[in-house]
This record gives sequence, structure tokens and C-alpha cells, in this order.
Amino acid sequence: MPAANAYAVHAPTDRFQPFSFDRREPNPNDVAIAIRYCGVCHSDLHTARSEWGGTRYPCVPGHEIVGEVTAVGDAVTRFQPGDIVGVGCMVDSCLSCASCREGLEQYCEVGFTGTYNGPTQDSGDNSYGGYSDRIVVREEFVLHIRHREEQLAAVAPLLCAGITTWSPLRHWKIGPGKKVGVVGIGGLGHMGLKLAHALGAHVVAFTTSPDKKQDALALGADEVVVSRNPDEMNAHAGSFDFILNTVAAPHDLDAFLTLLKRDGTMAMVGAPAEPHPSPAIFNFVLKRRSLAGSLIGGIKETQEMLDFCAEHDIVSDIEMIAMQDIDEAYDRMLRGDVKYRFVIDTATIGEAS
Amino acid sequence: MPAANAYAVHAPTDRFQPFSFDRREPNPNDVAIAIRYCGVCHSDLHTARSEWGGTRYPCVPGHEIVGEVTAVGDAVTRFQPGDIVGVGCMVDSCLSCASCREGLEQYCEVGFTGTYNGPTQDSGDNSYGGYSDRIVVREEFVLHIRHREEQLAAVAPLLCAGITTWSPLRHWKIGPGKKVGVVGIGGLGHMGLKLAHALGAHVVAFTTSPDKKQDALALGADEVVVSRNPDEMNAHAGSFDFILNTVAAPHDLDAFLTLLKRDGTMAMVGAPAEPHPSPAIFNFVLKRRSLAGSLIGGIKETQEMLDFCAEHDIVSDIEMIAMQDIDEAYDRMLRGDVKYRFVIDTATIGEAS
Repeated sequence: MPAANAYAVHAPTDRFQPFSFDRREPNPNDVAIAIRYCGVCHSDLHTARSEWGGTRYPCVPGHEIVGEVTAVGDAVTRFQPGDIVGVGCMVDSCLSCASCREGLEQYCEVGFTGTYNGPTQDSGDNSYGGYSDRIVVREEFVLHIRHREEQLAAVAPLLCAGITTWSPLRHWKIGPGKKVGVVGIGGLGHMGLKLAHALGAHVVAFTTSPDKKQDALALGADEVVVSRNPDEMNAHAGSFDFILNTVAAPHDLDAFLTLLKRDGTMAMVGAPAEPHPSPAIFNFVLKRRSLAGSLIGGIKETQEMLDFCAEHDIVSDIEMIAMQDIDEAYDRMLRGDVKYRFVIDTATIGEAS
Repeated sequence: MPAANAYAVHAPTDRFQPFSFDRREPNPNDVAIAIRYCGVCHSDLHTARSEWGGTRYPCVPGHEIVGEVTAVGDAVTRFQPGDIVGVGCMVDSCLSCASCREGLEQYCEVGFTGTYNGPTQDSGDNSYGGYSDRIVVREEFVLHIRHREEQLAAVAPLLCAGITTWSPLRHWKIGPGKKVGVVGIGGLGHMGLKLAHALGAHVVAFTTSPDKKQDALALGADEVVVSRNPDEMNAHAGSFDFILNTVAAPHDLDAFLTLLKRDGTMAMVGAPAEPHPSPAIFNFVLKRRSLAGSLIGGIKETQEMLDFCAEHDIVSDIEMIAMQDIDEAYDRMLRGDVKYRFVIDTATIGEAS
């Protein structure tokens, strides 16, 4: 297996720099992939800078991967060279616990292997992600991509932002007749709006920025509420079946919990470094409401989401960048200056910076 | 209708004193009841002392009522004089909203009429509860009691403590094969243990008091965990389908949330005056756990619970008191000095204090 060319950080305060390493020779059940595109997720930044702690350096982030199969192991049955495929947040799990057997590998009782910042299940090595030109992944964690060629860069963010919003929408049975809120219009939120709309729900976008109203409507919202405006919020009191909250920054959960109808649920897909103000238990009790969380999604439902998106012509809204622009992209991401996902063109990895 | 004899407080810092007032003449759909027993709920104390604000004085608490039908209106079909009946936390609701039509009057969109501290739906008057010798209630909110005569005093607390724990156990489908935690062994918790056990679950009681272990086992717990002991807690990490949390005092919710398995729910049935420490969102996300609330229960499920309890010989553990002992009972309740519910023998109302 030739060396992989990548970009890595070697310490929390480092800038990215070129890095080469060997990918493993494909095992009988492995798929070798030439990476074409990799989305830039906020988790990449958290990990590169060790903001959650526990980062293993050198760190090669990237778990929104689209590429082309270059070789397959002898036991691989579902892929062949030339296939366009995706890899998301996971590259391995135990495949035998109750969660894995249900197709919910993200809740593997043993713990799944992240696409980056491993450790790998076999050797315990650090796993290196999609900020690189090739990757080798066991067949069970490789996804078929059925979008059109010209859509492939914009498909990459579906592998994390897409499935992270799809999984809770499906788990809480969102569809026609349901009123759904999406809090935050960023990388996750913009996918939440597209998917909830395509699933047939009545979709309300919540944003703190009045200037995002037109964008939210274009993304699929039926209504847009400026969450800092109490009158706009109160007009929706007790009316939502489900709210998908994509905002990781600490904020007032009660303002949204009170918008749920009886038996409604608000699912959080971002976790703040500092806690949210504590929600009032009365808001749960008085209408049997729930606050829940959801983590990415399983492989089976990721394939369902990708097929659904191909069928409905859904991709992410992206801005393509060269690998060398990654540090600047992180800075812009922190300022919210992206609509709505950066995607690295990995063909640029070998270029001079 | 003769005057009702009761005990009331006239201001937040008052002690209880005798109070007489007129109950309404029975309307065609009303049931007139001679009250025999009334349980003493912590909500009574909160309301008498206006700790939640909004108390209407004079205040006659009491919503765990067992009595005998003395008269019925012409349109009443399900009750007749001599029947032993119960009245719980509600005496009226709109009966036409979605929640009422589903038999969930406690979530009436208009708002139900509390058995005390009204206002009543017809006249807007203050409603007076079970610390009295008679009450008139519309038929839809009267329950049949099928327990034996000698059990009736101990049946009274089923009307609030019983249904408040029964409703979430049923809503979250607790039965054989489920592992259920009950946090707090007081008026609500001791009923939660009895009911979860009778429903066939594996029941674990959580208490801060090691000296309650034997009691909890006797009440129906299969295991008892002292929640202040981290080793005992950790031994149950990720293993519960459902936790019923009856503790209203602020406490660490994370300690219990982490004991839930994937897709597990912790339902709160008490709401603290001061918020709990804010729970960590990671604990929700990593296993798709939920935090929920639940409010008493509907009339239909209250009847189901009463019938289930009659069939399984379940009543509350009580200490009977005279009406004149109510202030002392409140003081003892605040100290946790009751196993596990005070019940007023309303025959004592007319006695000299």
C-alpha cells in the first residue's frame, strides 16, 4: 500500500502541515478508497485542538469522506474498484453487541472506532481520517453513494451532518402532519431543515439572526422564528411535536421546551463545553415533555439517508476549499462564516502551500 | 345541601382551624360524597403555605379522598348511594380537548380544576378539598373503589401518590423484563416500588439513607442502592430501562442518567423549587437517553390503577391522624418522619381540638 499523503496537527496549538503515513494493506474484508472530498466538521476542530481532551497526535481529522474504491479484499462482496463510496464517523465497532446487531453501531457497547483519533480495534493504533488522499476501511463501514458525479463534493457532509440530523428525525418518526423545529442554522441545522422538509413535516427554523430568515426559507423552512423575540416564540407555545436542537453553545432550553406540545421531545445533537442553564422540571411535568440526545447514526440508516438524499436530490450547501486553507477555514467556522459546510478538495493535498 | 365542616388555613403562616362552608346542591351529573378519609400530600403543604404562589384563601387542601356516595343527580348512571368512591387531584376539566378525549384530563389544554385551590369551571369559585366531611363532584371525576372495607383508609393515597407513579410506569410500558429504578422512598416512592414490583419489573430502590434498605426490600424492591455510594451506583451503569425519580429536592441528575441504558428514560414526578444542577448533555447524546416529566394521571388510568391495586391487594403504608393533628403532621412530613403517608380520619373533624 503506498503512503497516504495527509495534513495533520501535532499539538493543540499547531497549524496544519503535510504529513505522510502508511495505510494498512487491505485485509480480506477491507475496501481501499482514493479520497476525493472531505467535509470539515466542528468536531474536527474540537479534536485537532484537544478541546474535549484526549486527542492523540499527530491528528488527521476528517469524517465526511467521499471517494472511489481502488481495491477490495478477497472477502468483500458489496464493493468493487470504481465504485463511488462514503465513509462517515465510524470505521469499526464490535458488531456483536445488542446495539451493533440492531444497526446502531454508534451506540456500540464496546465503543466504536472513530474515523480519526482511534484507537483502532485491531492494533490500538491512532486512526487517521479524511484530510488525506486514501483510506482503508472494513466493508461494513463503507457506504454506497448514488448521487450524480457533479454532486459528490456536496455529498460529503451528509456522512456526518446529514446522518446526525436524519437519525433523530427518523427515530422520533417525523413525517407528514408533524410540526418540527430546527434550532440553529449551521452545518447541522441546514441539513435538518432540508431533511425534515423532505420527510414531509411542517418545519420551523429558529435562529438568533434575523438576516438568516431568507436562507432558512430557501433551505426548506415553512416558517422562521427569531428566537430572541419573545412574541414570535410565544406564538408557537405548546405546538411542536419535535424540536431538533443543533446549538452546542449554552442557551436557555426552557424557551424551546415550552414550545413542545404534550409528549413532545427536544433532541440535542450538540453538547456544550459549559452546561446549559438548568431546564425547569415543571416544563417537563406539566406536558409530559422529554429532553433527549442523539449521536450521529448507524450504518444501515446512513445508507437509507444517502439513498433518500440521492432520490430527492438533496446535498449539503458547501464552500470548497484547498487543503492548505484549512486553518483559515477553522477560523471562519468559529465566526459562523460559512454557508454551510467547508469541503476539502483532496486533490490539493500534494500542492505547495 | 348541609354545610360542610372542614379545616382551613387563612394565610400562608396560619395554623389550620375549623371552617364551615356550603357545598353546591348536586347538579344532574353530580355525585355527593360523605368523606371518610383523606391522605396528606406534600402538595397540600406547598399550597397551604403558598410556597408555589397563587394560593386562594381560605384554603382547604386534600386530594386523596375516599368516601361514600350519599346522593346522585338525575343524570348520574355509574354511581348510587352507598357506593364507596374516590376523588383524586381533579374535579373538572373541559372534557373536549385532545388530551381530555384521550383520557388524559391532567393535561387538559384549558386546564383542569384542582380538587382544591380551584377556580371552578362554572362559577370561578375557589374549590375546597378533602380536609372536610363532604364533597360534590361531577360523575366523570369520581372513581369506584373495590378494595375491602378495612383497607379504605390506606386506599386514599392511591388517588394521588398511587396514580402519579402508576401513570409513568404504564406510559413507559414497564413490565416483566424491564429493569426499573425508583429514586426516593417517600409517599410517592413507596408506591412506585409497590406498583413497579406488581407490574413484574426488576425493581431497584435508590435512597440516601442506608437505614431504609430493609423497608425498601419489604415494599417490593429487588435491590437497594445507597445513592451516595459511588461504587454501588457504578455497578448499575448503563443498565436501566427506566428510572422513576420522585425526589423534588435539587440533586445530581447525571448520577442517575448515566445508569440508563441506550434509549432509557428518567421520568421526574416532583419539581424542585430551586433547579437541579444542569444535567450534562453528553449523557443524553451518547446513549440517546431521555429526561421526562409526568403529572398525576388521567381518570381512566386512575380507575385502572385502583382496580389493579384491589386485585393485587395493594394499598399505601399509612399512619392515621385526627384532623386536629394536621399542623404537626406537616412538621413531621418536612422531617421525613412518616411511613409513608398520613391519612386524616375525617370523622374527627367535628371533635374539639
